[in-house]
Parts: sequence; structure tokens; C-alpha cells
Amino acid sequence: MRIFRLINNGWIGNFVIIGNKVYVLLSDPITALKLYSEGKDVPLGPEVNINIDELLTKDYTYKGLRFTKPYDPPEVWGGSGIVYEVARARYSEEDVAMIRGKTIYELVYDAERPEIFFKGTANRCVGHGEPIAIRSDSEWTLPEPELGVVIDSVGKILAYTISDDVSARDLEAQNPLYLPQSKIYNGSCAIGPFLVTPDEVSNPYNLTISMRIIRGNSVIFEGSISTSKMRRRVEDQIKYLIRDNTVPDGTLLSTGTAVIPPRPITLMHGGDIVEISITGLGTQRTPVIKL
Amino acid sequence: MRIFRLINNGWIGNFVIIGNKVYVLLSDPITALKLYSEGKDVPLGPEVNINIDELLTKDYTYKGLRFTKPYDPPEVWGGSGIVYEVARARYSEEDVAMIRGKTIYELVYDAERPEIFFKGTANRCVGHGEPIAIRSDSEWTLPEPELGVVIDSVGKILAYTISDDVSARDLEAQNPLYLPQSKIYNGSCAIGPFLVTPDEVSNPYNLTISMRIIRGNSVIFEGSISTSKMRRRVEDQIKYLIRDNTVPDGTLLSTGTAVIPPRPITLMHGGDIVEISITGLGTQRTPVIKL
Amino acid sequence: MRIFRLINNGWIGNFVIIGNKVYVLLSDPITALKLYSEGKDVPLGPEVNINIDELLTKDYTYKGLRFTKPYDPPEVWGGSGIVYEVARARYSEEDVAMIRGKTIYELVYDAERPEIFFKGTANRCVGHGEPIAIRSDSEWTLPEPELGVVIDSVGKILAYTISDDVSARDLEAQNPLYLPQSKIYNGSCAIGPFLVTPDEVSNPYNLTISMRIIRGNSVIFEGSISTSKMRRRVEDQIKYLIRDNTVPDGTLLSTGTAVIPPRPITLMHGGDIVEISITGLGTQRTPVIKL
Amino acid sequence: MRIFRLINNGWIGNFVIIGNKVYVLLSDPITALKLYSEGKDVPLGPEVNINIDELLTKDYTYKGLRFTKPYDPPEVWGGSGIVYEVARARYSEEDVAMIRGKTIYELVYDAERPEIFFKGTANRCVGHGEPIAIRSDSEWTLPEPELGVVIDSVGKILAYTISDDVSARDLEAQNPLYLPQSKIYNGSCAIGPFLVTPDEVSNPYNLTISMRIIRGNSVIFEGSISTSKMRRRVEDQIKYLIRDNTVPDGTLLSTGTAVIPPRPITLMHGGDIVEISITGLGTQRTPVIKL
Repeated sequence: MRIFRLINNGWIGNFVIIGNKVYVLLSDPITALKLYSEGKDVPLGPEVNINIDELLTKDYTYKGLRFTKPYDPPEVWGGSGIVYEVARARYSEEDVAMIRGKTIYELVYDAERPEIFFKGTANRCVGHGEPIAIRSDSEWTLPEPELGVVIDSVGKILAYTISDDVSARDLEAQNPLYLPQSKIYNGSCAIGPFLVTPDEVSNPYNLTISMRIIRGNSVIFEGSISTSKMRRRVEDQIKYLIRDNTVPDGTLLSTGTAVIPPRPITLMHGGDIVEISITGLGTQRTPVIKL
Repeated sequence: MRIFRLINNGWIGNFVIIGNKVYVLLSDPITALKLYSEGKDVPLGPEVNINIDELLTKDYTYKGLRFTKPYDPPEVWGGSGIVYEVARARYSEEDVAMIRGKTIYELVYDAERPEIFFKGTANRCVGHGEPIAIRSDSEWTLPEPELGVVIDSVGKILAYTISDDVSARDLEAQNPLYLPQSKIYNGSCAIGPFLVTPDEVSNPYNLTISMRIIRGNSVIFEGSISTSKMRRRVEDQIKYLIRDNTVPDGTLLSTGTAVIPPRPITLMHGGDIVEISITGLGTQRTPVIKL
Repeated sequence: MRIFRLINNGWIGNFVIIGNKVYVLLSDPITALKLYSEGKDVPLGPEVNINIDELLTKDYTYKGLRFTKPYDPPEVWGGSGIVYEVARARYSEEDVAMIRGKTIYELVYDAERPEIFFKGTANRCVGHGEPIAIRSDSEWTLPEPELGVVIDSVGKILAYTISDDVSARDLEAQNPLYLPQSKIYNGSCAIGPFLVTPDEVSNPYNLTISMRIIRGNSVIFEGSISTSKMRRRVEDQIKYLIRDNTVPDGTLLSTGTAVIPPRPITLMHGGDIVEISITGLGTQRTPVIKL
Repeated sequence: MRIFRLINNGWIGNFVIIGNKVYVLLSDPITALKLYSEGKDVPLGPEVNINIDELLTKDYTYKGLRFTKPYDPPEVWGGSGIVYEVARARYSEEDVAMIRGKTIYELVYDAERPEIFFKGTANRCVGHGEPIAIRSDSEWTLPEPELGVVIDSVGKILAYTISDDVSARDLEAQNPLYLPQSKIYNGSCAIGPFLVTPDEVSNPYNLTISMRIIRGNSVIFEGSISTSKMRRRVEDQIKYLIRDNTVPDGTLLSTGTAVIPPRPITLMHGGDIVEISITGLGTQRTPVIKL
């Protein structure tokens, strides 16, 4: 089951893809995912005439309709699960904070406890086709393509999605104490286009995450990685997220990135498009604006 | 624009027919009618694959879906607008209450002020395909096929629908003081299948209201009348309904009947089907149960 | 327990009198009554410094506060329970509708089934100190002082209150089909000042209902009666009200009147005060306006 | 105006102290603060009989009532505003992360941009008399007594309060990437007892913040500091908090601490009481539990 939402003049409709057919979803997405995870019937309405492929094209509109985020996550959290081998190299160009001769990223890579951080609420998130943002005070902002996981309040995985943990890299590089300002602001997170139930994702540790940054007619960055290189299991991150910390049903965990554009690449206002694909989860395309 | 709703396991979806296409309606019905009446865009979703004709067949289900009332009216009121010539004869067989030599129905027929009565709330209403009811203490209950009018709080007509003002005729015949018990009870009102905007009803005073009562394989009653024989204008009834009486947006006024099955016909539990059609508003079919 | 509400600039507070102390009520009134009826703790806040006697004086304000209706009844119904002996005489001056030689009131008086009618919703009700209304098209409107009964959805009595079933007597006298217009309009019902739990009303059939109509400096009507003369038991009215008719928790039944000002008395705009007292339920005073 | 809330069996009441009198507050706290900040009337109910001093005693109950958090903050954020001189010394005993020879705390102290971090939502907060918590996986947890500031969505200061930014210091010391786990968990924040409007706080930069940790019959820590030593203005922190980051009305900013118990002090389960006072804002006392 793949859930998505379409928006028209501020009004939102819920839809679901089963097999190759699209149906109206009569409940809200979180309820549908809960029912599905319990083996109960999801309340489907009639089939709709939507050509998903056409709807997913670049200009994001289809007879007045366009995608929006596939649901309103009550809380979004980030994890560092996908600390691939490459992650060690991530900050080599920066003066990263160090403790006893190791960078804080090396330390967390080797530690039992993962990094978990708050990433925002629904109002800071956009959907496929909607603009992600560069902070007004950032000169170096990058997208971070990640496997997003929707969980319930006891940590059960309800769905997967593409999530873009957009980050003001310059703030983060200046001081790890600026991480919240780097991570949490309007337009700092993109999710969707779909919420995909676990049964449609045969192996979450064998997905290809790929990203392209398109500027005008050129692809200025292209990269991909397999989640097989994920060091930290999703379940392990969830365990720490919900330890002593009650989260609401539908909380989104963005599990960490490993596709990192090298310097001096930065997102730029006006024309940049970020395109992220994950095996089985579709392709998310977002324009870029500066606040 | 014709609005209808489909239900699946308690979850309800809103839909709209424009021309010969069916679309998802992204707002609630009352908001859509208000927007439409103000000339604003109604928030449509994608086209859906519904064969309305097929959905309107007798068994009321279509791939797990069935009609329900086209909206939840906050208040339902009845009027006596359709006091056709035949109405004078209506109660000839009964000992109708009289004042100064005239029956109360004759008096109201000749008076400037119409009869207006409270008919219930959404929880007393059913939709196309859902059972209307006979009170447990009634032996003579009849359907009353009527033109239903949806108004806003200042009396503007937002839509038309078929409404069935089911009435416990024996209670009513016993004493006019029993009218509320005759009129207001669970399952005493059926509305739909559609809410039809005024632009699709060329002339509300030139519609044919027809009704059939089907028992097993027989039609035990069949009758029809034209709203051209309506004595009291709808606007006149609305004027009295809202005079000094604030009603909420979406209030339904059922404008009075003139198709009256003769004695000894009564609805009966188990097998009876009431079928009401009004020009341009479709056909409403409801089974009958006894409470 | 006696519940009341105070209003200040549109904001409402709930309070409760236990013994001779007044406390803040932390829940809504209906929940408090339900808890109380089940023998559970009602959530009380701290004691408040209110001199109830002072608050109940004629000008209805006390340091910026005044009474409003003691709760928002989802539905209000009227009954004909208090059909005292006098009621036979009630309509002697009118040309009352008759069936087979008896007036409709005589018939209902002798019948097993009581009269039950819809009286409105919370927005048509006012509280102690707030104006009741005369319809713009009525020249003869009277208050009807009655014992009000708050019930839950299965008919259990949760509380008693004073209720004034204000009625446009001229509309009603013209034709019983005008009863809803006589009974249901803005300002047609006054309730309070208090909701009083059954344990504080030793015997509902031994209460004195008294009413005075005050015009300027004169009492133009004064009358009283005992509920011992009530012909129809409250339980009997409730039985018919909820038969096949699902009402919400907190529904108010106004049980019928027997204190009837003789002709030519009518309420008049500007200066009239209606004062109703019932043993143990306090005194309700309402000014009168014409719509 | 000082707003507080009392709880009884899960039901909550709003109250306000004006001068030396206590009144029922008829609106929710955030609305009251907004009205007050705009110079409009706050909807007061009657005066209540509460001896605040008595209510503020150690056992936290008063005739069945006790304090709870003075409102439900939609979002809580932490700042580093109160980076007093002492803060430089704060982490001297730890192996703090360093960049180019300076600790990250020294860097933020000298930088223009303050540290701002997400601290949680209402469900992670407790009130005066309710237990703050030690994470199940922390061995070194400390209270951080801070000046809390309630703002609206455009950053206007609506009220001050005492806030305790309880932190798992061992997680934080291990790696700054663990700051969110150190800061955000159930029971990690205490607010109240009061929301105090700015007019009652003559100079927010001249308040004494003092804290005692009481274990059994002993005071195991006692310390205080003046907000005059606050390096970073509250307004400056707010500016960064809301820059490109839309926060809801009523957001709480906890402005940073400077009263730091030395090692090896840690909060312990069962018996510890944290007592925080700020000039004009009252005293907050919270027991301690381990999750």
C-alpha cells in the first residue's frame, strides 16, 4: 500500500495505490497505517483516474492538482543510522569538534548509542514538488537524502518514505551546538511522495538511495549508495528514540544520510531542483528557495 | 454540481458529479455548497471510476461501497409548502381536528402563515439504500416524498435533494399534539442520494415527484405529482422558518408532500422498498424496518 | 449539588454549590452530572468567594459577573406532564381545535400517550438575568413556568432546573399546526439559575412552582401551583420522549405548565420581568424583549 | 498578573493572582496572556479562597488540589542566554569537544549566534510538585534552574516563569551529538508554579535565581546567581529562535543556566527535592524519580 495526498487550493485528499490501481483513502493516513499494521481493513473508496507517472512529472501539477506531504507528521526526528563507511570521511574538510583526539562523528560511529535529534513538526515539512528552503543566514545548505520511517508510539514501523533532511551545513560546521538551528526551520524537511507499507519493501537494508541536484539544464551533483552499507539498524535507532521519550503515533524518523555532495556545492535559490529516489519508494523532486 | 457520499465500514467519502464525470470532493459538502453559491471554486480532487447507474441499483453496494446520506444536516425542518389541491382531500377519512368548522389543514391551507415543524437532526436521518423506520408503537406509517431544500443561515438556497418525511400517521391522526412523535424518531427521514445545486434545477416548480412502494415483487402503490401544483413557494416557507429563529448553515427544509397512499396502505417491516424520484434529483430507494 | 455558570465578556465559568459553599467546577456540567449520578467524585476546584444571594439580585451583575444558562442543552423538549386540573380550563376562552367533540387538550389529558414537542437547542435558550423574547409577529406571548429535567441518553434523571417555556400563544391559538413556531425561536426558553441534583429535591411531586410578572413597579400577575397536582409522572414523559428517539446526554425536558396568566395579559417589551421560583431550585428572573 | 493551574483527578482549573487576590481565570492561559499583552481585559471569574502560601508548601496538596504546570506549552526551546562568567568554567572537569583549541562552549560564548535547542513539548513537562525524571540510562543528571520566557509567534514576551531544564549530563558530556537525548525525555522539564506577566517583573536582568537540592533532611547543594550576569539578552535569543522558524503562540524559551552543582553531585531517585526560586516568580519544588 502506498499512501499519498493531493492538494487543491489548500484542500487535501488522501489516496492509496494498491497494485497498479489508485483508490480514495477514506481515513486519515496514520489511522490507515495503524489498521494495516494490525491486519485490519483499510477503508478504501472508489478507484480514481490518476496517472501517477504523469502526476510525478517535473511541473508537479496535473489538472489543478499537485502532491503535498503524504501526511502531517506530529514530530520528525533525525537519526544517524546510515553511518556508512563514507561518513567517516564526511567532515574531513572541516574543523570538526574533537574529543580526546577523535571527531564527535567518529565517536558516535563507534559508540553503542546513536545520534538522535529533533527535526521539527509538520509545519516545517514540505512534500514532493513543494520548495525546500535555505535559511536566510546560511551560505552553505545541502540536502540529505534519507530513508524515512513512520512509527507508532511504541516504535512499530508503519511505513517507509523518502525524507530530505535539509541542513544548513555552515551553521553545523561552525559549532555542533548550532545543530538545531542547522536542522530545524521552515522548509527544512521534505517527505514523500509516498508512505509505503513494510510489505512492499522487501528488504530495507537493500535499497538504493540516489540523489541528483539539477541547476538549470545541468546535473551539478549525482550520487547514490545502498542501504546495505547502513551501519546502524533502523530498529536500533528507534529503540533510542523512544527510550524514556513518549512520541505520538505517526512520528517520522529520518534515518541518516550517506550521499554527500562535496564542497563547494551548495543549494542555491531559484532554479535548483533536488531529486531523490529510493528503490520502491519513488522519486521526490523539490525546488529550492532562500528564506 | 451533484454531491453524494459513499460509506465503507463507517468511513465516509465526499464526491461530486459535474457533467458526466465524478470527482473526489476535497471539502465537506456544506462548505462546497457555500463556495459554489458564492461563485467560488469548489475544491475538486481527481476523477473517480464510478458508474453511478450501477451504484444506484437495488442492492446498494458496489465493490464494498454504498451510498449514505449526502451530508449531515445539523437541523431538519418540515414545511407544508406543497399543499396541492389534493391535500384538501388528504384527511377526509380521518376525524381531523377542527376549529370553527374547518379542519386545521384547511385553515393552514388558506392562511398566510405556513406550517413549519422540526423534523430532527442528522442522527435521525438515513441515506439512499439505508433503512427508514416504523416506530415500534405505530401500526400505520407512511413515506412522504418531498422536495428537500438545503439553506444557509440567512435562508439562501444552496441545494435541492429528495427527502422522505416518514410519518407515523396513526399518531398524527389521533391528535395533532402528537405530530412531533409522529415526525421525529430514529430513521424517520431519508435524504439523497444527491445534493443538487440550483443551477441544475431549471425550475423547482416544474418537477415531477413520484413514489412507488414495492412489497416483494409487487408495486403496492404508485403515484406522482408535479411541483407546479405547489401552492406555497419555497421562499415563503423559508421566510417563516428563519423568522426570529436562527438556523445553522446547511439546515434542511423538507417542503411538504402531496403523494399520499390511500388507506389501508401502510409501510411494513421486512421487504418493503420505498422508491422516490424527482426530476433531475435522481431516485432514492430505502428498505423499511420496524423499531 | 447545585451547578451554575457565570459569564464575563463571553467567557464562561462553571461553579457548584455544596452545602453552603461555592466551588469551582473543573469539568463541564454534563460530565459532572454523569459522574455524580454514578456515585463518582465530581472534580471540584477551590472554594470561591461568592455571595449567591447577592448575585441573584435583580440587576444580575456582581463585580462584572452575571449568570448565564447553567449549561448548553444539546436538545430541549417540552412535555405536557403537568396537566393539572386547571389545564382543562386553559383554553376555554379560545376556539380550540376539537376532534369528535373534545378539544385536543382534553384528548391528550385523558390519553395514555403524553404530548412531547421539540423546544429547541442551546442557542435558543437564555439563562437567569438574560432576556427572553417575544416573536416579532406575536401580540400575545406568555411565559410558562415549568419543572425542567436533565436526562442522559437512556432517560436517567441527572438534575432538575427551572425552565420557562415561553410561547407565542396567539400563534398556538390560531392553529395547533403552528405550535413549533409558537415554541421554537430565539429567546423562547430560559433555564436556571441552577442545575440541582435529585438528592437535593426530596420529592419532585411536592414542589411549589410560582410565577410573578412584574411591569414597572407593579406585579401584574402572580400565581402558583404544587407539582403534587401533576397528573403525568416525569418518568412517563421521559419514556415517550426517548421511545425510538435517541437523545444526547444532557437533553432537557421541560415538563409542562399549570400557572397560566389569564387574558388579556401578555408579555411586553421593555420593563417586564418574569420571576419564577420552584421549591429548592431557586428563583429565575428574566427581562423581556421583542424581536 | 500571575497565572497558575490546579489539578484534581485529571481535571484542571485556571487561576490568576492580581494584587493579593486570587481569581478564577475564565479563558485558557495563552489567550489570557495575549489579551493582557494587548491591553485588553482578561476574563476573570470570581475571587477564590486560596491561601497560596499554604498551597505552595512541601506536600503539594491542599484540600485535594495541587499545582500542575501553569499551561501546556506547544513547544519548549532552550537557549544559552545565561552564559555567565561561571559558564566558562562549567565543563572544566570534562573532556569537552574542542575546535581549533577552544571548547564548543567557549566558541558559542564568544560568537554572535547563541545556542538554541529544542527541549520538548507539553507532554515532556511537569509542574510545581510533580516529579522531574532521571533517564533510565543516565547516572549523572542535574537540574538547570532557568528564567523561562513565554512568547507569541512573533517573539513578543508574554510572561516569565521558572523553568528547570533537567539534563542527563553524562550523555551530554560523552558527545555533543547526544544533546537531544540529554535534554528531551519524559519529565525533563519543569515549569511554574506561575506565569508572571512582564509588568510584574521590573527588570528581568536583575533577578536572583537560586537553587537547592534537598536529600532527606540535608541540603546537598545550594547556589544562586543574578541575571545581571546574563551575557546574552533574552531578546537576542528570541531573535535567533524565530529566525526562519515559525513557532506557535505560547512557545516557551528556557534561557540558560548558570547555577551548576559541582561533581559528583547528581540527582537521585527517591527523596531528592529540587527547589528553585527566582525573584518575583516564586518557588518551584519538584521531587525526583528515575524512569
